[in-house]
Amino acid sequence: MKKINNISFVNVDFNDGFWRSKYDVNKNVSIHNVYKRFEETGRFDALRYNWEEGKPIPHRFYDSDAAKWIEAVSYLIMKDKDGYAEQQKIIDECVDCMAEHQLENGYLNSHFIQIEPDKIFTDRDGHELYTAGHLIEAAIAYHQATGKRKFLDVMIKNVECIEKTFVVDKSAQFTTGGHEEIELALIKLYDHTGDKKYLDLAMFFIDSRGVSEEQPIGRYGSHAYSQSHLPVREQTEALGHAVRAGYLYTGMINAALRTGDQALFDACERLFDNIVNTRMYITGGIGSSNKGECFTVSYDLPNLEAYSETCAGLALMFFAHGLQEKRLDSKYADIIEKVMYNNLLSSVSEDGKSFFYENPLELFVAAIGRETAIQQKHWTKMPLRQRVEIFSCSCCPPNLNRTIARLGDFFFTETDDTLVVQQYGALSLNNDKIDLTVNTKYPQENTVRFIGSNNKYKKLMFRLPAWCNQYSVSGAAISRIEGGYIVLDNAGESFDITLTLTMAPTFLRSNSKVRANCGRVALTYGPTVYCLERIDNPYELNAVSVDIDAEVKVVEVDGVTELLAQGYVDKDIDELYAPATSDKEPVTLRYRPYRTFANREECDMVIWVRSN
Amino acid sequence: MKKINNISFVNVDFNDGFWRSKYDVNKNVSIHNVYKRFEETGRFDALRYNWEEGKPIPHRFYDSDAAKWIEAVSYLIMKDKDGYAEQQKIIDECVDCMAEHQLENGYLNSHFIQIEPDKIFTDRDGHELYTAGHLIEAAIAYHQATGKRKFLDVMIKNVECIEKTFVVDKSAQFTTGGHEEIELALIKLYDHTGDKKYLDLAMFFIDSRGVSEEQPIGRYGSHAYSQSHLPVREQTEALGHAVRAGYLYTGMINAALRTGDQALFDACERLFDNIVNTRMYITGGIGSSNKGECFTVSYDLPNLEAYSETCAGLALMFFAHGLQEKRLDSKYADIIEKVMYNNLLSSVSEDGKSFFYENPLELFVAAIGRETAIQQKHWTKMPLRQRVEIFSCSCCPPNLNRTIARLGDFFFTETDDTLVVQQYGALSLNNDKIDLTVNTKYPQENTVRFIGSNNKYKKLMFRLPAWCNQYSVSGAAISRIEGGYIVLDNAGESFDITLTLTMAPTFLRSNSKVRANCGRVALTYGPTVYCLERIDNPYELNAVSVDIDAEVKVVEVDGVTELLAQGYVDKDIDELYAPATSDKEPVTLRYRPYRTFANREECDMVIWVRSN
Repeated sequence: MKKINNISFVNVDFNDGFWRSKYDVNKNVSIHNVYKRFEETGRFDALRYNWEEGKPIPHRFYDSDAAKWIEAVSYLIMKDKDGYAEQQKIIDECVDCMAEHQLENGYLNSHFIQIEPDKIFTDRDGHELYTAGHLIEAAIAYHQATGKRKFLDVMIKNVECIEKTFVVDKSAQFTTGGHEEIELALIKLYDHTGDKKYLDLAMFFIDSRGVSEEQPIGRYGSHAYSQSHLPVREQTEALGHAVRAGYLYTGMINAALRTGDQALFDACERLFDNIVNTRMYITGGIGSSNKGECFTVSYDLPNLEAYSETCAGLALMFFAHGLQEKRLDSKYADIIEKVMYNNLLSSVSEDGKSFFYENPLELFVAAIGRETAIQQKHWTKMPLRQRVEIFSCSCCPPNLNRTIARLGDFFFTETDDTLVVQQYGALSLNNDKIDLTVNTKYPQENTVRFIGSNNKYKKLMFRLPAWCNQYSVSGAAISRIEGGYIVLDNAGESFDITLTLTMAPTFLRSNSKVRANCGRVALTYGPTVYCLERIDNPYELNAVSVDIDAEVKVVEVDGVTELLAQGYVDKDIDELYAPATSDKEPVTLRYRPYRTFANREECDMVIWVRSN
Repeated sequence: MKKINNISFVNVDFNDGFWRSKYDVNKNVSIHNVYKRFEETGRFDALRYNWEEGKPIPHRFYDSDAAKWIEAVSYLIMKDKDGYAEQQKIIDECVDCMAEHQLENGYLNSHFIQIEPDKIFTDRDGHELYTAGHLIEAAIAYHQATGKRKFLDVMIKNVECIEKTFVVDKSAQFTTGGHEEIELALIKLYDHTGDKKYLDLAMFFIDSRGVSEEQPIGRYGSHAYSQSHLPVREQTEALGHAVRAGYLYTGMINAALRTGDQALFDACERLFDNIVNTRMYITGGIGSSNKGECFTVSYDLPNLEAYSETCAGLALMFFAHGLQEKRLDSKYADIIEKVMYNNLLSSVSEDGKSFFYENPLELFVAAIGRETAIQQKHWTKMPLRQRVEIFSCSCCPPNLNRTIARLGDFFFTETDDTLVVQQYGALSLNNDKIDLTVNTKYPQENTVRFIGSNNKYKKLMFRLPAWCNQYSVSGAAISRIEGGYIVLDNAGESFDITLTLTMAPTFLRSNSKVRANCGRVALTYGPTVYCLERIDNPYELNAVSVDIDAEVKVVEVDGVTELLAQGYVDKDIDELYAPATSDKEPVTLRYRPYRTFANREECDMVIWVRSN
């Protein structure tokens, strides 16, 4: 069915450069640190089924946290077959315990089996299908990485239980899970095994959502919260919990790619456009409200109170990654790029040890006091201002682990005769159709050199980023621009092509309906969104304005591309209110990439700066 | 003890002009409408003690709602001894019922007696001392108005119960009430009866607050919520529920005026300065957070989410009204004026029928959807955008009733030899020292004519408003400026003096620490704060900027002084994000007084407009 395919990270290796350093930090620090914190907090004990009265109760979705970590490690093993013996031992022990404690009918969830066996499949928000989905993804990855089948067999038995319960007996107290994930996992299982019944089961869950009245999710009382307000093919607006939505849409697009269901494709395109045109932060973050971690309404994108959960940004990447297998339209990879260089990397500290769950677009330290002046319940929750090593709900860190470990997945797409370069980075691609080396300092520099040999692709396509107005290709002739891509019709068996995507500091504005951003601009450089931190700009950052007509200098400081812009600081008054003047003092504003914020000290930060 | 005294409204009558129209709407419409809504909702039935199983339960503070209405009617009776027979009949019946159902020991609260007699004086947040305070105020006013003592006697018996319970037996399960009010009421009772024991009891409650650890208020878990975090004389920062705070501070200043307690005076001055210099809206509104109806931290003054409760603004007036009996410093009356022309009048519709509880400084209708996109608990509560006739907690409407009915209280202060004009309005003042007529169209026009006869005051003082830079007096010579007042040392037995307080449209700015207002200005004209409504300015109001250097035209439209300013509207973009330009279109901005907003149709409104 599929004619366009994303190329697997298995064939992609990062060379020295921007992404290699992020990849290595993930591999060498983050994954180990997440493991330690998960071990300390009982997340692996959950899979060991060793809970006893008096010990902390494993949470309903602890299994999924450990599963994402196993998936991440599996991806690392795929690149290093001789490594990770210690981690494999841990995983194998967990798998043995899961196999041992799995119920006879195949049911598997460490919380419900150990703590609430009488509640199995009674609560739509119990996350049982969600944890099953993550365990399936992990089992497939572990099988691919090691060849060991036991985990996969456990999960296949679990899927049989799910199918019997939901499709045959209809004995669960709900029809679809409150938190989507099983859909996309079952499609992976179909791809991995070739057994169409898994695709059918995925379609069952996709088709059943929003069709019949079932339990709304307890705390929120709205079917939109779990995207159950309408049959999925009728949905036009991204609503509800942003991670749940993103996982559902990813399941939908991957199902449509395999079934050819046009109505499902159409719904995916509508929902994608709705997100990126009306409810996505400039960083690629989505889900603006901490209340329910939700989408709200069009153009409601507050900065200080932004939720913009790490997992939601990743889910948007997964969704776009599916869409780019449908049509060669650069808008999908543009959004992936936006998330990669901004929301994704802001989520993890530069040392790899700690993480953001929310990714706010402004920090205003004085607002802390608002929460603490009176210790009340139900304050407007403000985002954390510093990354931490673990959260009580710690879905994001292992999600980053597994996504960065397979980041090579996002760089290339192919058709029968075409290699499509979706993302730019220093790397090698080696498969049976090409040996390609890409040399670049992107996103710090704007040239990308492609050295190809043994090339069997007739055509090459290079994504022309949405931010790029000026570009050139040397070493080959551009045949045309199509769908936002530079097309080279005759690549040749070997080539040495240099693509230049001219980066210039660019001030962006928002639609006037975005109340928070009126009269303000965000400075960008290539795919990177910039911000001001008070540590570099010792002023009230909302009293600062920037001159969008003045030259912005690009300077390299300790490996970071900084932008120096002409700004002004309002002269302050002593009073609370006083007659207005236009008095302001000129200052040089020192912008740094948003992804680097909050890595030095806790201080105010803004992306959207007042402008002339 | 007191050497400076505010002159009672009993001696002040509004003549045709700005305040007469507001006074008449209150008298002819608001008071009757509030009565009807209170009757419909069982608030008078509460005082009739006719609750039966199956009927709606009278709320713990229903007594106080009806009490404030009785107080308002009493003030009207004082001006019209032959009127209000129907209302007196209702009140007398209620008083009979209260007397009949008052417990033998004097306890009185319709909720606790009828519904929870076993809970009497067990819950610090039960509002029993608060309702007692309002009933005391009502009983005094009704006695003054009609000479009927029964209500007063009931409340004196109730105060005896309170004294025995809290001071003698210490048998209540708390020492001070969770919602202040009894303090200021007891001081009124002291003034009315001359019996010092009531002042002593007020001091007991004032002195006991924050001294010993007692119940924090249940829902909030903070002693600051009820100003119980420190002994009152040590408090430096206005904290907690803004109405509770304002009533406490009013009690404190009125106590200090009668006892001469310097530490208490000092605390009052500190708290007043803290409010007006760090946590007061430009409209005079206070208490910026809907969470607990609270003060938060310095400079935390969001506009869209502003709480700025009507009762809190009134409480600030009462507090300042007390302070102006301590020192002739115009800053107190400046704040009273700010509240009167802005927060107070925004609270009631022009037809007098409906009311705001919160008084937001911005309306953004598109944000409605944020609340309704997902029906969740604990959304950030947005203020109502249209006034309503009654609230489930309907403290504000009768508070406005009683305050407007005695608004004459706020216009004059006197010493032995001086008449101090604190506020300007068309009125007559007739007492044993002067017959004064004031002719003015203030705040629409800037001349105020004072025609005095039979004058026995040696000196006259006219407050020089903080907003006024240019002024003149004709008909007499200015002796000096002192404490923010124009002083005329020799007024003469009769005089005809015209004061001109030149009003000019003035753009004000905020301190840069007020995040929400950076780069924005508020347009004012004399004491009046102006706003833009979308009905007059059909643009995204945050996409509008105003030129503070261009001329502002003053025009009279249907009796309303409108201001026309040179503005610009950003040219919008179709996309969510696009390269920034400075493209804007010139427009004329039509400003109208903030107090008139939301009287035509529901639409966006802003006070703080972006500026050049």
